[in-house]
Amino acid sequence: MSQEKKYISYAESGVNIDANDQMVDRISSSVKSTFGPRVMDLKNGFAGLFSLDSDSKLFKKNYDHPVLVACTDGVGTKILIAQQMKKFDTVGIDLVAMSVNDMLVQGADPLFFLDYLAVNKLDPENVAVMVESIAEGCRQANCSLIGGETAEMPDIYGQDEFDMAGFAVGVVEKDRIITGEKVRQGDIIIGLGSNGVHSNGFSLARTICFKQQKLNVTDKIDSLNGRAIGDALLDPTKIYVRPVVKLLEDFADTRPVHGMAHITGGGLVGNIPRVLPSDCDASIDKNAWQVPPIFDYLAQAGPVEESEMFRVFNMGIGFTLIVDPAHADAVMQNLSESGENVYRIGEIVGGSGKVILK
Amino acid sequence: MSQEKKYISYAESGVNIDANDQMVDRISSSVKSTFGPRVMDLKNGFAGLFSLDSDSKLFKKNYDHPVLVACTDGVGTKILIAQQMKKFDTVGIDLVAMSVNDMLVQGADPLFFLDYLAVNKLDPENVAVMVESIAEGCRQANCSLIGGETAEMPDIYGQDEFDMAGFAVGVVEKDRIITGEKVRQGDIIIGLGSNGVHSNGFSLARTICFKQQKLNVTDKIDSLNGRAIGDALLDPTKIYVRPVVKLLEDFADTRPVHGMAHITGGGLVGNIPRVLPSDCDASIDKNAWQVPPIFDYLAQAGPVEESEMFRVFNMGIGFTLIVDPAHADAVMQNLSESGENVYRIGEIVGGSGKVILK
Repeated sequence: MSQEKKYISYAESGVNIDANDQMVDRISSSVKSTFGPRVMDLKNGFAGLFSLDSDSKLFKKNYDHPVLVACTDGVGTKILIAQQMKKFDTVGIDLVAMSVNDMLVQGADPLFFLDYLAVNKLDPENVAVMVESIAEGCRQANCSLIGGETAEMPDIYGQDEFDMAGFAVGVVEKDRIITGEKVRQGDIIIGLGSNGVHSNGFSLARTICFKQQKLNVTDKIDSLNGRAIGDALLDPTKIYVRPVVKLLEDFADTRPVHGMAHITGGGLVGNIPRVLPSDCDASIDKNAWQVPPIFDYLAQAGPVEESEMFRVFNMGIGFTLIVDPAHADAVMQNLSESGENVYRIGEIVGGSGKVILK
Repeated sequence: MSQEKKYISYAESGVNIDANDQMVDRISSSVKSTFGPRVMDLKNGFAGLFSLDSDSKLFKKNYDHPVLVACTDGVGTKILIAQQMKKFDTVGIDLVAMSVNDMLVQGADPLFFLDYLAVNKLDPENVAVMVESIAEGCRQANCSLIGGETAEMPDIYGQDEFDMAGFAVGVVEKDRIITGEKVRQGDIIIGLGSNGVHSNGFSLARTICFKQQKLNVTDKIDSLNGRAIGDALLDPTKIYVRPVVKLLEDFADTRPVHGMAHITGGGLVGNIPRVLPSDCDASIDKNAWQVPPIFDYLAQAGPVEESEMFRVFNMGIGFTLIVDPAHADAVMQNLSESGENVYRIGEIVGGSGKVILK
């Protein structure tokens, strides 16, 4: 056979190496904007390196028994709204928020974050915008984006489809881990305002808006000040790290915070019980704060019963703290001075580990 | 209007909470099988907790300046072979391998792992098998599976489709980080045998097998001892943690290991340069080991030129160590005693930071 063989190459199998190199260049400054002095920047390294430096001046606090705290999460089908709106500059904030707000519950300071981004086709521009939004989340959470993976998989993700997963690591001194075991009758429940739907309940929200109401993402809604429904749903998840870390530092001596909860899927009724002792209930006054208009819209457009709304959505409260009543006012003032919308939403009463909405 | 409103609920929007609870029960024992004494098992916790315990007896080594090392990766389109074979008991090993072998390169001991698993439909049986394979990877890597997220997203993942991302954290003493900066002329390059294609080059492998050759995943291949092509491609990535960590401990005084590389996408020619000084080349004798039959099959079936094969696949060497020549024999013997297939595959010569295949 004198016929010349036709060889096949990696590039012909659909992997775009140039686009990858271009993307790496573009995201580099976003990533570096999150680096603190404890990130060790290893050229061509196989891993992200972060110095725990327990006896260095770089480390503001000294840890006798450092406990590492790790979380992972995605942003669920909020991804699909971003995809339909072709708006990629906020979902990265959601991605960081979901993990760092979770670790905050245990009293941990976020240290670093890594992302996994899977796409149909590696569009350097879109990926750069997404990574910059992740970097923005990291800056808000005061943590460093020390690693990530972007995978181009056209045979798994359809045209324009993508998914993202985030991983966060933080640290807490062993005897300062907050577990809820100190929660007791008479403690005050403080709620911090949310920024809308955050990243949970999107299966229901999408069913209501796009199946029931047959809206397009760009349709404007009167009761939402004429905003497009897609924009309202995309409002990024609030990151509670800076105010809560500051609070824990400012009250390091009296330690009035007995338990916290990040209000995700399950709402207040599903998440607060995770830190309740078995002989306590959380009595919550649902008139203590104004439910944001997006939830009123979803409840009416469904329609969805109020009890179901509270089981699925945060209803305007994205994070809760259960505190010693003697310090409740001071805690509320501290959080308020950090710029949070702070509500006294209820108290701990005798019971069996559940939430009572009043 | 006296007509009764028809309310919509979360369950009707397609989220299966029962399947989730059932899955959590099923994976619990797999997850706990990976726990060492440093995992703090927090009931209903919002995060995974891992005690660094720098001055406790639980911690075998003491760290003066602990540096955390973090990696994230997926398994690429190897996922699709598992999906087509409906074989989910090995891809979790790949997932762990991709991250822990990367961190090993910097000299780190893996501590813990978290997984993100996204599926079309939450089948508790399949998810349990996948998570058990992740737990098996963690046991092989001597690390604890302290967290994970399973997301059911039918509007992103088509029927039977799924994706997974992994995240590993380890620790290394600051002055023992291996960077390659000590690599010098005369150093010996040691290769550790791979277990097949591992988790890279699948876009090319799938193009060859399923587009060019039009094979089904179950078609048996004579030159692979009659194994199904899907089975051969699914052989899990070798995890090099235990032999390499033991080597670094056994040679803690002389520190003969100057650089390492995990051979992933890019092959030997793409990965070894990541730890080469700019004035050194790695001269590799490609006859120093037997290329496994799967690579011969792919090269012939493509056909793919040999140089391209070496740029895409590991070709039988999954991990390399660059070591001081005075200790090369002892290092090889140590790794061999740990059960590895060990090859002296080349040496460091003067050059410009590239690999020369001879």
